[in-house]
Amino acid sequence: MRTLQYTAPRTLVVADAEAPAPRPGEVQVGVSYAGLCGTDLHIFHGDMDSRVERPLVFGHEMSGILTAVGSDADGWEVGDRVTVMPLAWDGVCPACRAGNEHICQNLDFIGIDSPGALQERWNVPASTLVRLPESMPLDVAALVEPVAVAVHDVRRSELVVGDRVVVIGGGPIGVLIASVARHSGADVAVIEVDERRRAQISGLGFATIDPRTTDQAAWVEEWTEGAGADVVFEVSGAAAAVAGATGLAKVRGTIVVVAIHSQPREVDLQRVFWRELRILGARVYRREDFERAVELLEEGAIPTQSVITRIVDLDSAQEAFADLESGRAMKVLVRVGDAA
Amino acid sequence: MRTLQYTAPRTLVVADAEAPAPRPGEVQVGVSYAGLCGTDLHIFHGDMDSRVERPLVFGHEMSGILTAVGSDADGWEVGDRVTVMPLAWDGVCPACRAGNEHICQNLDFIGIDSPGALQERWNVPASTLVRLPESMPLDVAALVEPVAVAVHDVRRSELVVGDRVVVIGGGPIGVLIASVARHSGADVAVIEVDERRRAQISGLGFATIDPRTTDQAAWVEEWTEGAGADVVFEVSGAAAAVAGATGLAKVRGTIVVVAIHSQPREVDLQRVFWRELRILGARVYRREDFERAVELLEEGAIPTQSVITRIVDLDSAQEAFADLESGRAMKVLVRVGDAA
Repeated sequence: MRTLQYTAPRTLVVADAEAPAPRPGEVQVGVSYAGLCGTDLHIFHGDMDSRVERPLVFGHEMSGILTAVGSDADGWEVGDRVTVMPLAWDGVCPACRAGNEHICQNLDFIGIDSPGALQERWNVPASTLVRLPESMPLDVAALVEPVAVAVHDVRRSELVVGDRVVVIGGGPIGVLIASVARHSGADVAVIEVDERRRAQISGLGFATIDPRTTDQAAWVEEWTEGAGADVVFEVSGAAAAVAGATGLAKVRGTIVVVAIHSQPREVDLQRVFWRELRILGARVYRREDFERAVELLEEGAIPTQSVITRIVDLDSAQEAFADLESGRAMKVLVRVGDAA
Repeated sequence: MRTLQYTAPRTLVVADAEAPAPRPGEVQVGVSYAGLCGTDLHIFHGDMDSRVERPLVFGHEMSGILTAVGSDADGWEVGDRVTVMPLAWDGVCPACRAGNEHICQNLDFIGIDSPGALQERWNVPASTLVRLPESMPLDVAALVEPVAVAVHDVRRSELVVGDRVVVIGGGPIGVLIASVARHSGADVAVIEVDERRRAQISGLGFATIDPRTTDQAAWVEEWTEGAGADVVFEVSGAAAAVAGATGLAKVRGTIVVVAIHSQPREVDLQRVFWRELRILGARVYRREDFERAVELLEEGAIPTQSVITRIVDLDSAQEAFADLESGRAMKVLVRVGDAA
């Protein structure tokens, strides 16, 4: 079978490999599509070389069809349409024992810490499978994972109907969070520096703010009649966004840290104190987030046509990363196997 | 009557003033004791000159006995023993309308934004009064306000019985938070750089850590059997404490920002994300916190003898600030009026 391997910074290789039979408790998935995300871009750049083992078959957003079922994988059959929740926890660490398996202290994030979806046949534990509706196109289904991220972030924020929500950063995850928040009954504004992205997001019916030409704090103050935003999602990863986020939230408002900040960031703790703000980290997802993501995609709550910018073949994955780097693309899907 | 006035940086003046009769809805309190706190020290240093009107009669931690009762102050009589919750809110701002009157967007913090307790007769709205038990000594009662701060901080943390709690900063508020947390069933460790304070805190039965000689993250890791602390209170105001606090908390642990940080602080948002931490601002208190503080002082849950370092007369208040600046004192009380 064909696999896509990260072998060195900025170097991807399409390589042949054996497709082993699934072990007990595992299934073999014929991967249809795999989406590329910001973490994959970090891997591609070599930023995660201290964490990943090379060569790495990466990829963790996907859809596919079962091609083999191992023993002890009850309830699954060849031909089932699935996606994978790419987390494996140890079940014994303090986080797991407290019910936070999704952020296990020894989490195996499949596709980063172990081989991922960019291979034609992918063996995974049956416990990671999430069933897809027959009616869901497999390209759309490759969005279940990032939508589950957004569902998790919105769930963590505890936003309620009528809340005024600001999303800082209008990339794919920002747009998905905005969409899920709106579907939950919130009014949503998106702060985004890129003009083309702003136009696209406006086209989806969201208010947009260019932070370079608009005083975002004054804008939010007026929008919320002097209260401030109920919830702010920091999705940009930018230092300036963090510095400004506290100025947008209402008294007892919530700021959800979704982006990865590789450096410590300056935070206005005086404002955190003064307004009794709440800052919450939000990482990956739980099974209920995956299941809700499938429902939202079925209900048409997610603007999939806007999010999926491009679909490429395995051989063109390397050039697809150039699109991601330039900000020209939202989500790029890779057509992996014949099941697509 | 005699008053203590802040007139210029590092300058306090004992001045005579008229004692007006209380207006409708007000009472006149014969102030017995007033405690000096970190905010008063900031005022004394001139750090809050842009906020306060000079000359300012400051002071907001106190005890006293009613000496006159205005009209429309039902339920109160001359001779009642009281303390004052020194907050006045506008009742109409978005924060108030959402039930967060204690952090009203236009809050009048009495003793900072309007005249405070360092005068022999102090007129306050009857709505700010909190009744004291007959049996409570008035010097002890001057601690109700700072204990209410600690109660509010612990309440905001949502800690539960058996939690492992770290308090960073062993000054008066740190010791009070540690005491309230322990009374709530938590195991408490205090991080404090000053050797004399550490010895005093150890004497109260708390574990203590010197962050300059002990790897605090490793210590907490071992203390919590690999989990991390359930709750961390940041009471020090130090940049280094903020940088380290995220490394002490368990997965989904809570960090409460109690201290005032006048500068933006570097925060490890990667850790906030990775462990899905929760950072909460906590400011002042609500009436239920004051009432609980009175109960805790009555129950003997607060080490008042350790917290009250010294009691001085009004004329010696200026020199008492030297004790506070040096860290030699925990809490200094000023004996204000004849009721003491």
